[in-house]
Amino acid sequence: MKTETVTVDLDNRSYDIMIGPQLIARAGALIAKRLPHVRAGIVTDSNIGALHLPELEASLKAAGIASTSIIVEAGEQSKNFPTLETVVDHLLAARLERNDIVIAFGGGVVGDLAGFAAGIVRRGMGFVQIPTSLLAQVDSSVGGKTGINTAQGKNLLGVFCQPQLVLADTDILKTLPEREFRAGYAEMVKYGLINQPDFFHWLEKNRTAVFAGGKERIQAIATACRSKAAVVERDERENGERALLNLGHTFGHALETATGYNAARLVHGEGVAIGMVLAYQFSAWLKLCSAQAAGQVEAHLRAAGLPTQLEDIAGSLPDADTLMNSIAQDKKVSNGALTFILTRGIGKAFIARDVPAAQVRAFLMEKLRSPH
Amino acid sequence: MKTETVTVDLDNRSYDIMIGPQLIARAGALIAKRLPHVRAGIVTDSNIGALHLPELEASLKAAGIASTSIIVEAGEQSKNFPTLETVVDHLLAARLERNDIVIAFGGGVVGDLAGFAAGIVRRGMGFVQIPTSLLAQVDSSVGGKTGINTAQGKNLLGVFCQPQLVLADTDILKTLPEREFRAGYAEMVKYGLINQPDFFHWLEKNRTAVFAGGKERIQAIATACRSKAAVVERDERENGERALLNLGHTFGHALETATGYNAARLVHGEGVAIGMVLAYQFSAWLKLCSAQAAGQVEAHLRAAGLPTQLEDIAGSLPDADTLMNSIAQDKKVSNGALTFILTRGIGKAFIARDVPAAQVRAFLMEKLRSPH
Repeated sequence: MKTETVTVDLDNRSYDIMIGPQLIARAGALIAKRLPHVRAGIVTDSNIGALHLPELEASLKAAGIASTSIIVEAGEQSKNFPTLETVVDHLLAARLERNDIVIAFGGGVVGDLAGFAAGIVRRGMGFVQIPTSLLAQVDSSVGGKTGINTAQGKNLLGVFCQPQLVLADTDILKTLPEREFRAGYAEMVKYGLINQPDFFHWLEKNRTAVFAGGKERIQAIATACRSKAAVVERDERENGERALLNLGHTFGHALETATGYNAARLVHGEGVAIGMVLAYQFSAWLKLCSAQAAGQVEAHLRAAGLPTQLEDIAGSLPDADTLMNSIAQDKKVSNGALTFILTRGIGKAFIARDVPAAQVRAFLMEKLRSPH
Repeated sequence: MKTETVTVDLDNRSYDIMIGPQLIARAGALIAKRLPHVRAGIVTDSNIGALHLPELEASLKAAGIASTSIIVEAGEQSKNFPTLETVVDHLLAARLERNDIVIAFGGGVVGDLAGFAAGIVRRGMGFVQIPTSLLAQVDSSVGGKTGINTAQGKNLLGVFCQPQLVLADTDILKTLPEREFRAGYAEMVKYGLINQPDFFHWLEKNRTAVFAGGKERIQAIATACRSKAAVVERDERENGERALLNLGHTFGHALETATGYNAARLVHGEGVAIGMVLAYQFSAWLKLCSAQAAGQVEAHLRAAGLPTQLEDIAGSLPDADTLMNSIAQDKKVSNGALTFILTRGIGKAFIARDVPAAQVRAFLMEKLRSPH
């Protein structure tokens, strides 16, 4: 199968995302070719480390790249200050220099943590990402956002740190649990819904093939990365358009908070799936898009095995006011209005800067009272 | 007295440095004019906070800028992970947003710490510097370097975070201890020695007036800032020319390490003064510049009341090998050679990329054995 390459064009911080099979085995050679004479600090987690670290280390060694490995505990709780300190101390103790690289080898948590470390050690080291989940391959590998959580909330500390190379190995997805693949699929669908209707319709036709693996999967990941790259290229620092990438995330985050970030009840991509359906239903409720479009989005996500309604979440949910509080904490509410990603149809999302909080609340009350 | 403004031209990160009297009293109005609707988190230390915080808070309040103040312990030991965490937690708890500002109100330590916090909270907040020492006004207020220390060394963690405005209040220097003023003066002289011979000669004529305060002081600070700005504009990320700013710092850092960063024996600017004299003497020893130039540099710094020789440091110093080890840790030594800032005369510094460590060692042995 052919490897696809997507170039993220950010002037002197431009980089390639390679998507295809056996990229971990080829990582050493691919890195050495682009970044000669570097040494590497690999950051991975206990799950990926146990399964795949020896292969990556061997690949680097064969290419003459000396490396040291830092294994953090798998899970969101590693995105904290003490773990960040452990990682940077290890990188410094290994005497890695500014031109050496940090390799993030794992999912979104490892990418956010390792990227933050790369961004602050010696005021910025080299950075390479080898995302191992579908979500990380289509989302966090593009755009350079890194960060950790604090007591006040998620991702409140971090830097923008663009990688120099991203290797999205599609073979590694074979060991990914089905539920995690589906969660990543939801983020992929998001790019179709934002501004690529053709991609959404392509996914409607090719969903089964994408889930089965093969060239359709590579093509879908490449299309999603290209789509995100185009947005990031136009608005790297999220001063405007980049907010479109939050489609489904306002409701999604509120649901993640409501379920206490308990992965047994809801993982991020599932929250985004329900959130996107709610964003379409809310847009239809506001008469901005047709109920038919909202139904089409829900049908596709449901066919992919994703939850799409509030009642798909196990256990009870808080009331509309509690959900609204959490939305208000996430988004700055000014004068009772908030910024929301709404849509006029498939692939027609837009940033609405003054959505009355009262309308969001009324819509949520309806959904919670009478789920269809 | 007239306020001087130096513009640091870094494309969309350009900013003004204002230098003159009563800028703390005018801070609120000056900030509100440039950055409307911001709220502020002031970071200061126990010394400056006790003396000047009420005046700054009142100035912000009068201009309608809501602020919260974070007071850290005065001294280099605050540039550590726990203090950084305290600062960012306070900024987040105050619900400051990405477009709000962190104000660094203090010397170099506060600037480095507050700038790092501003650079990572919400992936980068606004940042304003009100440097209160001469060293901070002529050095850390230009260039955007921020950071903290780790067990492995100084400034090993940080980001580049350019301020949006710098207010160098020259009145506040009246409360600065004379020794600290002298230490800042050494950094000012450095810009003349790097590439502005006219400035060095101007300082030779106007030193007494600069120490006395008044318009010569403002002029000298502005010239130093303009000189550093020109270097930073050409090489923001220190990939080349910016290394010139390290003139005197390689020997200086080794001496700071040798004296255990004990301010009673040596403060940074004093280390730089001795380091610059050593850099000129080493350059003369290598027959790159005249002994007369080295003598002229020493004479000027000595006249300013600064230490200029190894024997000016109270207590005993380690031997040449120990100093060399510390230089080697500071600078990456490759194949027995190191990068050093050398000079061909007053205002003719250059980056030498392959100075044999053996020559540095031999020179140091001579200096330690037979101080003149």
